Amino acid sequence: MPYEYRMTRRIEFAETDMAGIAHFANFFRMMENTEHAFFRSLGFSIHTETESGAVGWPRVSASCEFLRPLRFEDEVEIQLLVLEIRSRSIRYAFRFWKMENGTRQEVARGGFTTVCTTVDKSTGNLAAITIPEAIRNSFEVAPAELISSLVSVR
Amino acid sequence: MPYEYRMTRRIEFAETDMAGIAHFANFFRMMENTEHAFFRSLGFSIHTETESGAVGWPRVSASCEFLRPLRFEDEVEIQLLVLEIRSRSIRYAFRFWKMENGTRQEVARGGFTTVCTTVDKSTGNLAAITIPEAIRNSFEVAPAELISSLVSVR
Amino acid sequence: MPYEYRMTRRIEFAETDMAGIAHFANFFRMMENTEHAFFRSLGFSIHTETESGAVGWPRVSASCEFLRPLRFEDEVEIQLLVLEIRSRSIRYAFRFWKMENGTRQEVARGGFTTVCTTVDKSTGNLAAITIPEAIRNSFEVAPAELISSLVSVR
Amino acid sequence: MPYEYRMTRRIEFAETDMAGIAHFANFFRMMENTEHAFFRSLGFSIHTETESGAVGWPRVSASCEFLRPLRFEDEVEIQLLVLEIRSRSIRYAFRFWKMENGTRQEVARGGFTTVCTTVDKSTGNLAAITIPEAIRNSFEVAPAELISSLVSVR
Repeated sequence: MPYEYRMTRRIEFAETDMAGIAHFANFFRMMENTEHAFFRSLGFSIHTETESGAVGWPRVSASCEFLRPLRFEDEVEIQLLVLEIRSRSIRYAFRFWKMENGTRQEVARGGFTTVCTTVDKSTGNLAAITIPEAIRNSFEVAPAELISSLVSVR
Repeated sequence: MPYEYRMTRRIEFAETDMAGIAHFANFFRMMENTEHAFFRSLGFSIHTETESGAVGWPRVSASCEFLRPLRFEDEVEIQLLVLEIRSRSIRYAFRFWKMENGTRQEVARGGFTTVCTTVDKSTGNLAAITIPEAIRNSFEVAPAELISSLVSVR
Repeated sequence: MPYEYRMTRRIEFAETDMAGIAHFANFFRMMENTEHAFFRSLGFSIHTETESGAVGWPRVSASCEFLRPLRFEDEVEIQLLVLEIRSRSIRYAFRFWKMENGTRQEVARGGFTTVCTTVDKSTGNLAAITIPEAIRNSFEVAPAELISSLVSVR
Repeated sequence: MPYEYRMTRRIEFAETDMAGIAHFANFFRMMENTEHAFFRSLGFSIHTETESGAVGWPRVSASCEFLRPLRFEDEVEIQLLVLEIRSRSIRYAFRFWKMENGTRQEVARGGFTTVCTTVDKSTGNLAAITIPEAIRNSFEVAPAELISSLVSVR
């Protein structure tokens, strides 16, 4: 079963700031977009409307370390790794690689923990729920070596 | 009854791009934020959840002319003018002024047309509705002189 | 010579708002990203750093009409058309098509005018310049029929 | 000398997503805006253009824990605390409080480490520099009790 996912994209002009580099908040959007593409690759959507309300995945925590800047039109590969699957939450790690002339250089690494949640239609309240079986059974935690290599670099 | 609204804010760092100026898409967000503050000043919210679904104001069209750039930490005053009230839609004009050393210089002008709409809870479909009376009766169209002055500058 | 460009992308989660649809300001970013991909397809970048400063393309005006909403994960094709080439500026039109089950439905159309500009390194001031020959000679204005079809739909 | 700063703002419509809550990446922009307002309160700007290039403060790392959601028009107070001042970098903590009916409820807490940096004008390269004395002498680290209270809640 899959435990990682990779996607490549280019830094957009509106993602840069006056310092000429990709604004740091955009790394969190890139992580999220990779998670959503991972879900699509498994046949799911990260946000599903049901009769009683929506099922979504709000974040409990998020972090990122920035090693090198990314600039306009840089090609970046984002790698998702499944770090931990609990009954109601999933923890992911992400690594960012700048692709240039056939080489790849790590530019950032981060992660977030996200909770499976219903949004009540009338109140808008969020409540954590057990991850649906179909989703839970469609991927697995990355091998220990991969995860420990992440830690050792840090 | 009110037909205009003004608010002042500073250009944020994340709103700039690598050219060192406020990215043009942010002018549309600034127009919108001024419209929402206008609604709050009248005692309303631009988005209301009801039993059958949400009432909102999606845009039908939007435009902006950019006269001068805005930069990080520039103080900008945004003026909203009510141009037209129809049964289901409202048309606004906006002017942007850069405030500096007690003087103000026009930097942009734009506008949008927005339609009063329900979002069906089960389907998510949008449907135009007549503007609620309470909202409709709380403001009016700006005087003809004000509106024509807008056009003549253009 | 090319006078149009098409690209396809998906609506991202962070591009939606609480009304469940893509926020209207994002259509302007999508237009811009299509323009930048068009430039890359011609071998150019929309932003070039030179010894005396940067050469860029700030917008003079921008507009969009919104026909139908776009939602999370919708696949959208954006078509760029070159409407007019002047000595210092270019005018583009854009059409947005939602792609679904092999059919395409127009969801928005817009455009912007953009000026070739230098950014002075010491002052940050913008000054319009003649479009460099290499760029100017790499594409052309779309055929009159295509442009008039645009207008007639409007 | 100051070691904290507070600002209050409202959640904007474009900051919400289809789940009806403020998108998590926006918490990082709110932290940054509070840092920039803190600098302005001390008489500085977070980004200064000099003859040889710009002096700025790119981030080395950033993190946030999300305790409760924020929604459209919620009033949020953001508190900045100076955690550590090193020769080239500063570490801040941030707490987010939702203000409602005279009460305040903590909704998030986060932080980032930021490095004083020059951006070379010709190459665009970033290089860490010693924090200018004037800046360094204008604020101080928060008292140990305040910082330890942060940790104990965590």
